[in-house]
Amino acid sequence: MAKSVAIPLDNGFEEIEFSAILDVLRRAELDVSVVCLDKRQKEGAHGLKVTGDRVLGDVCDQSFDAVVLPGGLPGAQHLAESVELQAFIKRHADEGKITAALCAAPWALETAGVLAGKTATSYPGFDEKIPSASYSEERVVVDGNVVTSRGPGTAIEFALKLVELLVDADTAAALHDGMLVNS
Amino acid sequence: MAKSVAIPLDNGFEEIEFSAILDVLRRAELDVSVVCLDKRQKEGAHGLKVTGDRVLGDVCDQSFDAVVLPGGLPGAQHLAESVELQAFIKRHADEGKITAALCAAPWALETAGVLAGKTATSYPGFDEKIPSASYSEERVVVDGNVVTSRGPGTAIEFALKLVELLVDADTAAALHDGMLVNS
Repeated sequence: MAKSVAIPLDNGFEEIEFSAILDVLRRAELDVSVVCLDKRQKEGAHGLKVTGDRVLGDVCDQSFDAVVLPGGLPGAQHLAESVELQAFIKRHADEGKITAALCAAPWALETAGVLAGKTATSYPGFDEKIPSASYSEERVVVDGNVVTSRGPGTAIEFALKLVELLVDADTAAALHDGMLVNS
Repeated sequence: MAKSVAIPLDNGFEEIEFSAILDVLRRAELDVSVVCLDKRQKEGAHGLKVTGDRVLGDVCDQSFDAVVLPGGLPGAQHLAESVELQAFIKRHADEGKITAALCAAPWALETAGVLAGKTATSYPGFDEKIPSASYSEERVVVDGNVVTSRGPGTAIEFALKLVELLVDADTAAALHDGMLVNS
């Protein structure tokens, strides 16, 4: 059975980051759910209107193999401030599941306590939001079950790393080539 | 006043390509409208549900500074087969406006007659769909007012080239750096 991935979403998400995660992980045939913080209609930081698959209240007792957070503001701030989502992230980390975020969203891993003692990255300047991590400027950083990355231009690389971890390296390499990724 | 861009959309669009166009062009403060072929609710090739801004019937007499087509199947085929959209593309080309497409969508420029005598590219293998063009394997190709590109991995580069043409090179360069694009 395909592994499962939750993409938590709120208003102000970064459109390229969100789409890259959804698109690449579904190309890898993972079971991806867009999990909205409350109602299913959300609008991105640049006005893209989307409809998610579920709301967090419906899946908050469910376990996914990975929880992957897109960046964007104020979306990432909402993810960092939602008590319900913070408990959801923390539980997944405690269960040894992958927690991942890019751009501004590592902030929401920090507030969930996931980054303590980990090496991680974020959008430049957001290092102040993740003080418990050992900061890296690599485009994609893996430390145990925590995966972080930097911004819209690194989003496909970030998603391909998740495919490598959740499926295998061959699938990630085939998607890299098939999508004409230049890195 | 900001230049205007129409992004025609139908079911089966490629999510990364569509989001990259919308996101990058709106970051450049262009006036971007997502123009759906009929009703405003559309679903991407990998299941992303979006709501567009307008329907084609409402803007088919309006002129935009550029018409930019995302790829994906069957979305691009729908764009190539829509009589109303084909007339819309042809009119914009005749008015000297930019027409642009990537991945499978140059097919819809071909059927509109826009590629005759032009150098253009597409997703590998879709060269058969654009026989009137002189085929290039460059990641982004500009020939006069026609701009084409190859796939999800080239989508940000494609959108940045449109910013260069519709705004200026400095704005494109600043977005390139700010989005952490690796090319």
